[in-house]
Amino acid sequence: MGIVIVMPGRDEDAARLRVALQRLDSDLEVWIQPDIPDPGRVVSAVTWKHSPGELGRFPNLRAAISYGAGVEHLLDDPSIPAGVTIARTVDEGLIRDMVEFVVGRVIEHRRGFRGVAADQRTSSWVPRRYPPHWDVLILGAGRLGGAAAEALHHLGHRVTVWSRSGRAPVHVSSIVGREALLEALPGADAVVCLLPLTGATRDLIDASFLARMKPGSLLLNVGRGAHLVESDLLPALDSGRPAVAVLDVFTTEPLPPDHPFWGHPRVVVSPHVASLTDPEGVAGAILANHRRAVAGEPLCDAVDVDRGY
Amino acid sequence: MGIVIVMPGRDEDAARLRVALQRLDSDLEVWIQPDIPDPGRVVSAVTWKHSPGELGRFPNLRAAISYGAGVEHLLDDPSIPAGVTIARTVDEGLIRDMVEFVVGRVIEHRRGFRGVAADQRTSSWVPRRYPPHWDVLILGAGRLGGAAAEALHHLGHRVTVWSRSGRAPVHVSSIVGREALLEALPGADAVVCLLPLTGATRDLIDASFLARMKPGSLLLNVGRGAHLVESDLLPALDSGRPAVAVLDVFTTEPLPPDHPFWGHPRVVVSPHVASLTDPEGVAGAILANHRRAVAGEPLCDAVDVDRGY
Repeated sequence: MGIVIVMPGRDEDAARLRVALQRLDSDLEVWIQPDIPDPGRVVSAVTWKHSPGELGRFPNLRAAISYGAGVEHLLDDPSIPAGVTIARTVDEGLIRDMVEFVVGRVIEHRRGFRGVAADQRTSSWVPRRYPPHWDVLILGAGRLGGAAAEALHHLGHRVTVWSRSGRAPVHVSSIVGREALLEALPGADAVVCLLPLTGATRDLIDASFLARMKPGSLLLNVGRGAHLVESDLLPALDSGRPAVAVLDVFTTEPLPPDHPFWGHPRVVVSPHVASLTDPEGVAGAILANHRRAVAGEPLCDAVDVDRGY
Repeated sequence: MGIVIVMPGRDEDAARLRVALQRLDSDLEVWIQPDIPDPGRVVSAVTWKHSPGELGRFPNLRAAISYGAGVEHLLDDPSIPAGVTIARTVDEGLIRDMVEFVVGRVIEHRRGFRGVAADQRTSSWVPRRYPPHWDVLILGAGRLGGAAAEALHHLGHRVTVWSRSGRAPVHVSSIVGREALLEALPGADAVVCLLPLTGATRDLIDASFLARMKPGSLLLNVGRGAHLVESDLLPALDSGRPAVAVLDVFTTEPLPPDHPFWGHPRVVVSPHVASLTDPEGVAGAILANHRRAVAGEPLCDAVDVDRGY
């Protein structure tokens, strides 16, 4: 009755996670794919970007737990039996790192750190004023979106979140629906995508979305690459809506060396580092979910398969 | 019974402040130096970097109010009569801007935004891990230092403040005295100077201070240029303690075009923009202090002349 770790290409994280899990429970059986002496003993699988079908060899699997917040790799695997519960892992460290990245990138652009660096290269002392606050639109009101909204509100910004549920932290406005989104876009100095990737959110940020953005604004995508229609972005940047795109996620990762984003002066390419799952940080949450699976209890952060998150 | 504005070289700010004050009180008399029909009617002077002696022509002056948080220009003017109360202006906007700048610069360096930009120039996808939090040492526990400490704490960092008073926000450690400071320096990933400039804090950040800093750490000076012995910084950077200095203030401003800081790869020259006083933002606080002066009441944010802040 143990846990299998299925994270192709992430051997170091897998090894660290096994050590961290067994430090919490020395009797726990933890295997790393493909070294599994008895597949029948596997109750929980911790996965990141596994190949579809890889979980089919475990007849007693009850829980398929994503190593991170995203669960597309699990939802896209039709071979996972219907009785297996899919769950995400969103620990406090992951939220903290994401909030820090969003806050840091928003401030960097709002306060013109790149312009100051350019001035320094020509020894130019040019103090520039900035508006007293920004209007920030956050797409997604989950644990990440909500925490980012709260942090930006505390720093003095006017924050609106767009979501399906309509929930939002205190002091933060909430909007729902496509029409409200299109109405909010022209007023937003920054748009931050923290949505889950589902059929309803894929390709959301397309030419018509970008054309509604405020001239001079910032687009920050820390959701998934497929939220953005990448080929629509370059013409949008040429028109100044948005003025700058900070992208931490891409439809193909690593971003291919010949991709036009690399050399674009108003695209910031960030190598999917907004929030890195820390094996020691998530071990406790994963162990707790495994124990729930063993006991036949509902999992924490379980995914609604129909809704897609 | 009115207010004189004495801000040489800041004509636009002076004009906007007069408009903002008279919008709050249409009967208020506000003059801009040197156009003062009757110097005897001046009760309050709002000043920024005036020349010593300039306030001597107002026989009924009661309040000398700094346009910003710093008051050195007032304390350094021996011609201000002893009966005149010196006050600073620290409005919420000024605090908010300063906190945002400090948070933004700390995150920029902690999360390696400059390294990511360098990787982008060579189309290199290099995800780098970062420590789960930083230990940040803030010099100064006043309204600015306290607010910056609180914001960094909420973002998940371990914050210590060094001050004369020993006060600190909840959850933030407090240290007092030279010895405790020297003991704290080797553990700090970032040191942020938000001190007032006094005889006790001038030249604080000298070769012996810098030599105690952690290898690879960040020095952020948003206090006053004279807190740092500027000639000691370049050899310290060569030794890696600190690794980077972000300087928003300098002993001579604007920083002279031939100054070695401009071209140094590990000095960020920021043109004194961490926090810009907004005339409309501070008008209410200045008017309230003027009314207190007229009524003979104690001023808000009054300065203890002996202590120097």
